[in-house]
Amino acid sequence: GGVHDVTAFAKEHPGGRFIEMAAGGDVEGFWRHWHYHFHSPKVTDALRCTRIGRLVPSSDTVVDEDLYASDPPRDPRKHLERLARPFNSETLHEVLCVSYLTPTDALYVRNHAPVPKLPDGGAHRVAFAHGEAPVAAASLAELSSRFPRVTVTSVLQCAGNRAADDAKATGANGFKGTPFEELGCGMLGNVQWSGVRLSEVLRATFPQELTCPDASARHVIFEGADGYESSTPVAAILDEESDCLIATHMNGEPLTPDHGFPCRAILPGIAGARSVKWLTAIRLSETPSSAPWNANYYKREDGSEVQSLPPVQSIILQPTDNERVVANSDGSLSLRGVAYNGAAGGAIEAVEVSADGGTSWHAASLLRDEVLPDDARAPHHWLRWVADVPLPKPTKPTTLTEPSRNVEGDSEGRCVVCCRAFDVDGQSQPRVSAKQRGYLYNGWFCVELTVVPAEEGRPSQK
Amino acid sequence: GGVHDVTAFAKEHPGGRFIEMAAGGDVEGFWRHWHYHFHSPKVTDALRCTRIGRLVPSSDTVVDEDLYASDPPRDPRKHLERLARPFNSETLHEVLCVSYLTPTDALYVRNHAPVPKLPDGGAHRVAFAHGEAPVAAASLAELSSRFPRVTVTSVLQCAGNRAADDAKATGANGFKGTPFEELGCGMLGNVQWSGVRLSEVLRATFPQELTCPDASARHVIFEGADGYESSTPVAAILDEESDCLIATHMNGEPLTPDHGFPCRAILPGIAGARSVKWLTAIRLSETPSSAPWNANYYKREDGSEVQSLPPVQSIILQPTDNERVVANSDGSLSLRGVAYNGAAGGAIEAVEVSADGGTSWHAASLLRDEVLPDDARAPHHWLRWVADVPLPKPTKPTTLTEPSRNVEGDSEGRCVVCCRAFDVDGQSQPRVSAKQRGYLYNGWFCVELTVVPAEEGRPSQK
Repeated sequence: GGVHDVTAFAKEHPGGRFIEMAAGGDVEGFWRHWHYHFHSPKVTDALRCTRIGRLVPSSDTVVDEDLYASDPPRDPRKHLERLARPFNSETLHEVLCVSYLTPTDALYVRNHAPVPKLPDGGAHRVAFAHGEAPVAAASLAELSSRFPRVTVTSVLQCAGNRAADDAKATGANGFKGTPFEELGCGMLGNVQWSGVRLSEVLRATFPQELTCPDASARHVIFEGADGYESSTPVAAILDEESDCLIATHMNGEPLTPDHGFPCRAILPGIAGARSVKWLTAIRLSETPSSAPWNANYYKREDGSEVQSLPPVQSIILQPTDNERVVANSDGSLSLRGVAYNGAAGGAIEAVEVSADGGTSWHAASLLRDEVLPDDARAPHHWLRWVADVPLPKPTKPTTLTEPSRNVEGDSEGRCVVCCRAFDVDGQSQPRVSAKQRGYLYNGWFCVELTVVPAEEGRPSQK
Repeated sequence: GGVHDVTAFAKEHPGGRFIEMAAGGDVEGFWRHWHYHFHSPKVTDALRCTRIGRLVPSSDTVVDEDLYASDPPRDPRKHLERLARPFNSETLHEVLCVSYLTPTDALYVRNHAPVPKLPDGGAHRVAFAHGEAPVAAASLAELSSRFPRVTVTSVLQCAGNRAADDAKATGANGFKGTPFEELGCGMLGNVQWSGVRLSEVLRATFPQELTCPDASARHVIFEGADGYESSTPVAAILDEESDCLIATHMNGEPLTPDHGFPCRAILPGIAGARSVKWLTAIRLSETPSSAPWNANYYKREDGSEVQSLPPVQSIILQPTDNERVVANSDGSLSLRGVAYNGAAGGAIEAVEVSADGGTSWHAASLLRDEVLPDDARAPHHWLRWVADVPLPKPTKPTTLTEPSRNVEGDSEGRCVVCCRAFDVDGQSQPRVSAKQRGYLYNGWFCVELTVVPAEEGRPSQK
C-alpha cells in the first residue's frame, strides 16, 4: 500500500532496467511474477528508503489471480525443495545415484518466474533477430523438417551447485542470505537431449553475419517466455564439439513444462543459467545481454563471466554427509557417485576415493559400459562410479593426546570420505578450489561418516 | 678431403644460415667447434649428395689444435656422460637426492661447443642492442654497482629431460638416433642463483622501447660466446614474478666455466635452452632469434615453441629403475624424490606415491623446512620429499591365470612404484602426457623394482 520514488534506487536495482517496466503503476503483478522479492531482506530496506506516500484501500481494489497457481505438480520424493515460488529444487541423491540418465520428473528445477504456457510443440515459433532487427521466425515443425535431429547426453548443472561446500571451505560467499545458501550438489542431472543443432540453425539463418571476420566476437542472446534472458559468446556455440541444441525432447519424450516445453537451449559444458527455457527468440548481438541474470549475476569476484562449468568434478552420492553406515566384512566401505568434465568435455581418466581425509587414495571403478556409443565423441555426459574404499584402522582412545581424526579413523568410527576425478591431461579437483563468489566450486567432494563395523551393524539390518 | 656444393642443401641444413659461415674454405674448424657433426648419421648422407670434387693432401696441410682440449675437468662420480664433445651429462641420482641445493660441480652440463674462455668477472662486457643497432655495453662490475644483487633458488632443466620415459610411454620421438635417445631424468638441478634482475637492466637500457604499447610482442635475444643464441618473449622476462637474472654466481660462488662464467641468463620456469651461457650480447628484437636452436629445435609437433617447463613434475630419485630393494619391517618401502611446478611457479600442494602401478596412492612428506625463506614468494625451487609407501601383498603363484602384475604385487616381488605431484589448483601429472617430440614429458614417474622382504633382505645388508 505504498507509493515509492525509485529514481535513485533504479540504478542499484539488481534486476537492472526491469524496474522501469513497473513505473507509474501497480507493482504487484511484477512482484508476483518475479516472486524473488518476497525472499530477499534487501527488499524491505529498499522499500523503507524509497517510500514517499501511502495508498488508502478502496472498494475498487481487486486481488489478482495467483500467477503460480498453474505451475506443474512436482514429486516431493524426488525433489529437495529450495524455494516454493518460483519453484527451485535439487534432485535427491538417492534418485541421482540409481541410473545413468536422470529421470525427467526428478531433474532439478531452477525457475525464475511462473512456468509459462506455450502452444503445442510444432506450432510454437522462435523469432530470430540481428540486434533489434527481425530476420526470420520458424515454427518447431519447420526447424525439425529443415535440420537433422541430433541427440546428445549432457550434464545440466546450475552454476551455484555445491555453494554450501564452497562456503564451508572458503567462507561466506555470494549466496549468503538467499534461499540458496545451503545449496548442495543436487542441482545437476545427466539427460539425453534431442533437437536441432544450434550451430546449423544459426549458420543458415545468419549466413553473412557468421562468416565475417569478427563473427566470433559476437554473442547469441536467448529470450524465454518467462521474461528470463541471457547470452553466450557465438564462438562457444559454433564449435561443433560443443553440441549446442535447440532441444525439444529429453530422455526421448517432449520437454516437460518445468524444463522448457516446447523448446529450450541446451549448451553442454556451459552453466545451466545460459540454457534458456521456453525459448521465444534468438538474437545475434555485438554485446552480451544486459538482462540482470547476464549483467549482474554469474560473475566471478573479478567481474569476469562465469561461463563454463568447473573443469573436473566428482560427487559422492551414497552414502551422504553425516550418515551412519555399516562397513563391509572386509573392512571396506562401498561408495557410489558420478564424475564429469564440465568445461572442456575432455575425457575423465579416473576417479579416486579416500577414507582418511585425503592421505591415501584408491581407484574407483568407472561404469563406462552404460555410456551410449554416440556419446564418446565429445563426452558431455557423466560417468557413474562405484568403489570399495579401505577404511583406516580405528585408533585406541587415549587421554594423553587429542584423538586423531581424518588421518587415522577415530575411536568412534568417524571418518572423512572424499572423492576426486582426473581428466586425461592430469587436471584434477583441487583440495579447495579458488573462490569465485560461490559459483562452480570443484574442491574435493567430502562427506563425514560414522562407520559401524560389519559384525556390529549386521544384526540391526533388516 | 672433399669439395662440396651445398647450394641446395643450405636450405635444409639443420643449423640454418650457420653453414654460410664456412662457405668458400676449409670446413674443419667449424666442425670441430660444432662437434655434433661427428655424431649424426644424417651428415654422411648429406656429404654423399653434395660432393663435387676431392682434395689431394699436400705438405701444407696442418692439423689444427683440439678446440676441446681446454674444456674444464668434470667429476665422473657425479656425472652420467651422454656425449663427450661437446660435453653433455646428467647429474647422477645419488647426488641429486642428498641435498636441497644441487652441488655446483654436480649440476648437469648441456654444452653445444667448446667452453669459451672469457676475461675475469668484473671486466667482462655485455653488449645491448636494439635490433642490429648497438645501444650500450656494460661490464659486470658496472651492472653490479648499478643494480641490486638478487638471489633466487630455481630449478634449471633441459627441455629433453625424461625423453626416454616419453619414448617408452608414447613411442619413438625426436631424440631417436641422437646421443640423447636414452636421456633420463638427471638433466636438472636446483641451484641458488645470484645476479642482477634482468627486467631492471632491460627497463634501464631500453626505457622507451619497453614502455610502448607493443613492447610485450617483442623478443629478447641472448648471444653466448660459444656461438649459441636463442630468444625469449619480452613479456616473460619483464614479469616480476619470473625472477629472470643476469647471473654471475651459483650457490654463492662465481659461475664455473661449464655453467657460463662469468655470466649467463637464468630464466626460471623456462626450458634450460633459453638460459644462454657465456653471455656476450642481449638484443631487443621484433622477431624471435633465427638461430637453429631457436628456429628449428625446441618446437612441438604443431610447430609452436617449447617455452615453459612442464607445469607439474615429480621424480623418484631413490630407488632407481630395476633396482633390487629391501622392504621395511612394517611392509613398506622408503622412497625419496623431488617435485616442482616448472611452468607457472604455482605452489606444489602434494606429492603422492603408489606401489601398485597407480591403483592406490599415499601422501609423501614434503621437506618444506629446508626451503630458504626468500624463495616462498614465487616458488621456482623444487621440494624434496620422502615417503614410506605400503607394498601390495604378494599374490600366490598360480597356473590357472596369468600372474597379475602392477596391481597386486607379483609372487617374485616385482612391483611398479610411481609418484605424481599436485599444485594448489589441482593440476597433477597425467598418467601419460601429450606427445610433443619428446620435450617436457611429465607423465607419472614410475620405476620397476624387485622388493625383497625385510627378514630376507636384512642378513645380506652390511
